[in-house]
Amino acid sequence: MRDSMLPNGIRVLRLSAEDALKVAESLWYRHTDDTVIAVAQDWQSKDVLMVANMNREAVIKTLTTGMVHYWSLSRKKLWLKGETSGHYQYLIDFRIDCDGDALLLRVYQVGNACHLGTRSCFDARYVNKVRLDTGISEGEP
Amino acid sequence: MRDSMLPNGIRVLRLSAEDALKVAESLWYRHTDDTVIAVAQDWQSKDVLMVANMNREAVIKTLTTGMVHYWSLSRKKLWLKGETSGHYQYLIDFRIDCDGDALLLRVYQVGNACHLGTRSCFDARYVNKVRLDTGISEGEP
Repeated sequence: MRDSMLPNGIRVLRLSAEDALKVAESLWYRHTDDTVIAVAQDWQSKDVLMVANMNREAVIKTLTTGMVHYWSLSRKKLWLKGETSGHYQYLIDFRIDCDGDALLLRVYQVGNACHLGTRSCFDARYVNKVRLDTGISEGEP
Repeated sequence: MRDSMLPNGIRVLRLSAEDALKVAESLWYRHTDDTVIAVAQDWQSKDVLMVANMNREAVIKTLTTGMVHYWSLSRKKLWLKGETSGHYQYLIDFRIDCDGDALLLRVYQVGNACHLGTRSCFDARYVNKVRLDTGISEGEP
């Protein structure tokens, strides 16, 4: 495991295979390709980093390894976040919403979450009061 | 409008119909029922309150009224958040992710976001180190 990369005091959440299975079986895979929606949030800044899908296997892999895995809707395959970029997400906390079809993952993000090079996938395109003068905005905040 | 409910200094984001349409047309409605995923985050505490779906109409309604609307996957209808509970979500900031299939909404939440009576839909079920002693946990944090 790559725990040595984490600063002291930050503990990665990992479950036994048995416990991970219990959690995985409690979810409602109602979204595309039998998935739940997963929201990754920086455990410290509380910034929302990205949104992706997880199938049952991705949930189990995430919980047993402590490293976040997703299901890619585009590539139709399981995907270890950071497998090509090195920008892994270590799992700190795992929350399930009231109807079981969405997860909130507090993560320790290595580097940037977004493949476009920003910390969050939500950093580049936004609409708010500050930018209304110039209409709809795209660009760095 | 219900702006008078908001504390001084908090401005609700609203767009013209024309600008809202531009934003709506820039999204990728790849999820169930031709929707995008919307994450509602408390504008102040940065807590993630809920995750739901929005179709094109929900996006336009949200942006033109400044009050968050969703598409209910279960009821197959447009839904003004708070229409029965009074727990409206006022739009403060609207962000779009890098592939356009997910939104991050910073909101001013009136009352509780969750119909089960908790502030967030993610408050009741979670797994973390603190609770691992007793296995998988459900209950109040």
